[in-house]
Amino acid sequence: MVSKGMRRVMKLLEKRNELELNKRVRESRENLESLAALVELPEDVNLTQLELNGMNAVWIDSPESDSQKVILYLHGGGYMEGSLKSHEDLAMRIGKASEARILLIDYRLAPENPFPAALSDAVSAYEWLIKNQHVPSSNIIIAGDSAGGGLTISTLLRLKELNKSLPSAAICLSPWTDLAMKGNSINANRNQDKFLKSYDLAFMASLYIQDKNPKNPLISPLYGDLSGLPPLFIQVGSPEILLDDAVRLAKKAEKAGVDVKLEVWDDMIHVFQAFADWAPEGEEAIKKIGQFARAHFD
Amino acid sequence: MVSKGMRRVMKLLEKRNELELNKRVRESRENLESLAALVELPEDVNLTQLELNGMNAVWIDSPESDSQKVILYLHGGGYMEGSLKSHEDLAMRIGKASEARILLIDYRLAPENPFPAALSDAVSAYEWLIKNQHVPSSNIIIAGDSAGGGLTISTLLRLKELNKSLPSAAICLSPWTDLAMKGNSINANRNQDKFLKSYDLAFMASLYIQDKNPKNPLISPLYGDLSGLPPLFIQVGSPEILLDDAVRLAKKAEKAGVDVKLEVWDDMIHVFQAFADWAPEGEEAIKKIGQFARAHFD
Repeated sequence: MVSKGMRRVMKLLEKRNELELNKRVRESRENLESLAALVELPEDVNLTQLELNGMNAVWIDSPESDSQKVILYLHGGGYMEGSLKSHEDLAMRIGKASEARILLIDYRLAPENPFPAALSDAVSAYEWLIKNQHVPSSNIIIAGDSAGGGLTISTLLRLKELNKSLPSAAICLSPWTDLAMKGNSINANRNQDKFLKSYDLAFMASLYIQDKNPKNPLISPLYGDLSGLPPLFIQVGSPEILLDDAVRLAKKAEKAGVDVKLEVWDDMIHVFQAFADWAPEGEEAIKKIGQFARAHFD
Repeated sequence: MVSKGMRRVMKLLEKRNELELNKRVRESRENLESLAALVELPEDVNLTQLELNGMNAVWIDSPESDSQKVILYLHGGGYMEGSLKSHEDLAMRIGKASEARILLIDYRLAPENPFPAALSDAVSAYEWLIKNQHVPSSNIIIAGDSAGGGLTISTLLRLKELNKSLPSAAICLSPWTDLAMKGNSINANRNQDKFLKSYDLAFMASLYIQDKNPKNPLISPLYGDLSGLPPLFIQVGSPEILLDDAVRLAKKAEKAGVDVKLEVWDDMIHVFQAFADWAPEGEEAIKKIGQFARAHFD
């Protein structure tokens, strides 16, 4: 029997931890949004806010977009942060290069909405495109960065489970595919990666996973059966702690018979494509993404 | 070649990370000290501030203390926080129960002073006791909680390397012995441990270890050669993520021929002894510590 006094201590500590955690989540989100507020979209880009199946989303159209071709974009942010605003510039650039419309969705985030909320929102948006917008799956690509890149693969696995038709291809930028964090680069690149820290990833993983098994393939798609997936295009930076999340995904997919293309970009940081407005490497990489996407639409 | 623009992005991100990190360290320290400020020592306890080998320390004497017997106490706080103030109540109670003086030292902390600063301060305080205070090693016990418990063992390993006479015994409360964090309980107890979170440990580990190998035995004494160590007394709570740090230390020490006593306290939190003023389990555990200590002084 735990004494009343010790139970009081435990409650106090748990309450303090909870306040700390909420503060940390709030501040991290505010930090990301403060960066996002710097973005100015070109005038020829059209944003159309909408609500689909109860979730906010935005259509991003540019003069280059073919209205028949859609990229469903799943933003990054460790399943804890990121928004329609934080990723509109990156998504817009990918849309332009791919000559496609972008549907960027505001899927639910942890800790308020842990797994499987994000996954079910991604699946729901894909089904909405097919049923409500009558876009054939052969003209849909799913793409995402970081957690959104992992979610891209989880969404394919879930669609496969549900016997749904899969999209024509998928694109992953520095995908986070292993929330159990077993990749060697987590440790090997810990001093090289100047952006992501493994303890921050572990924090975000814990919020999303809660008491589930981190190796559940719908949480960590690296542990899933990847056979039957559509062509994958993966980009990652060489000094990333998530390098092995991309490399292992590519290897495992290839072994499962998937058509995979992996690009490891020397010295580039996590989701460097998001800084295309600052540096030419981002725009170059997005050009490659566009080539891949255009080759995989109907 | 990384473009100038991308180098600018990297510098910005690195700077943001550094500010974040410093803020997090500062706030965590302030949080711990705010708890410590609640402590009121009994009137019969004497604190004597001093400086030894350039570091602050405090002698804690109570009517029970035999002036010939000394416990060198290494406080916890993940090598990042904790102070003479935060641990004076716990150290005082251990001193009373052990009928010994306590020397509590303000060893240097990370990130300002990463490994081996804490270790060299602990070794230096031990040598000061012997050389300047003329306490025979047979009347010195080293004790510590959490990071201080791991540091206790690292200090023994370092003294062994230096061919110094070892203290008569060592006492570890919920010791953190593996900064590579390979214990099964890190994951298995992640929902049971209501106090410590592995991502916070990983954060503090990264500050202390920097670019060193986490399995360096002077950082993670679990990986050291434990033969020849003096008798060890270890207490830990059953639901702790650090349970296996204690259990593995005990097993490995026993295998190396060390006289080890491990107590696993049902349902108790990390360093529950620190809450002796709130709950009887703390005081009970400290009584056991006192019995062990009294039996191991000359």
